[in-house]
Amino acid sequence: MKIEPLTKEAFKPFGDVVEMSGADIININQNFAQRFNDLAFVDVAHEGGSVNISLAAAMPRPQPIAIKMMERHPLGSQIFYPLQDEPWLVLVCADPHVLSSYRAFKASGRQGINYARNAWHHPLLVLKQQRFFVVDRKGPGTNLEELMLDKPFDLQP
Amino acid sequence: MKIEPLTKEAFKPFGDVVEMSGADIININQNFAQRFNDLAFVDVAHEGGSVNISLAAAMPRPQPIAIKMMERHPLGSQIFYPLQDEPWLVLVCADPHVLSSYRAFKASGRQGINYARNAWHHPLLVLKQQRFFVVDRKGPGTNLEELMLDKPFDLQP
Repeated sequence: MKIEPLTKEAFKPFGDVVEMSGADIININQNFAQRFNDLAFVDVAHEGGSVNISLAAAMPRPQPIAIKMMERHPLGSQIFYPLQDEPWLVLVCADPHVLSSYRAFKASGRQGINYARNAWHHPLLVLKQQRFFVVDRKGPGTNLEELMLDKPFDLQP
Repeated sequence: MKIEPLTKEAFKPFGDVVEMSGADIININQNFAQRFNDLAFVDVAHEGGSVNISLAAAMPRPQPIAIKMMERHPLGSQIFYPLQDEPWLVLVCADPHVLSSYRAFKASGRQGINYARNAWHHPLLVLKQQRFFVVDRKGPGTNLEELMLDKPFDLQP
């Protein structure tokens, strides 16, 4: 599977890319700071949900990476923003049963993503140990759907 | 003014400290990641507000730092989490007119803060150029109150 550079346009069917590039810039703090404003749609209110702020620490998997399952969140969007400036991988698909619907992206260490509600994605795929800032949903209801693949495949970073 | 280390307990009157230390840890992603869960109260829904995800890039100010104004947000909380692992400063107060009510903190590069709604704080105070992940409010209404100090003072990092 080809690994593409992550761009807002290519990722649009799956959610938002959180990055400075292309953002609306606002000068703030007496011009001692710039704000790159309004970068993602936080979609977590369904069925009584609210915003959950978390941190995550991810470990690299053995390579080639065995892709055995995909997941999605029917009740909420989910942002991961890297806390070290190192590239990482993002694997999404339109339909987990259809291999041709998968897209693999290499995100830079200054690109986060916001998985749209119900967008199929693989759990975090890092190339080194990497920490992330996470914005997703907490609240009642079942917000995780995991699908084990009939035909697992390998991803070679 | 003494600059204290940032701790959850010391910062409690002003909001949350977003850090891995002391958090509830959940193993996720087939044990290839840990999640440090539910670290801040995102309080942005007042008067039709919603969550705004942004990035910021802050510049250091000349030292000693001239403290001339404080600000607060009557309609929403505000998270800043550093994207480089470098210490930065946090200046808050209970009453901008009362110098003894000020508290200055040195945050590590792995500590973010969430200013509670209505908590008085100074704009970003960094020691080097530093980027931040920001979670605050967008929506109708006036959400910024700035107060120019009668007696400006200097902060020596």
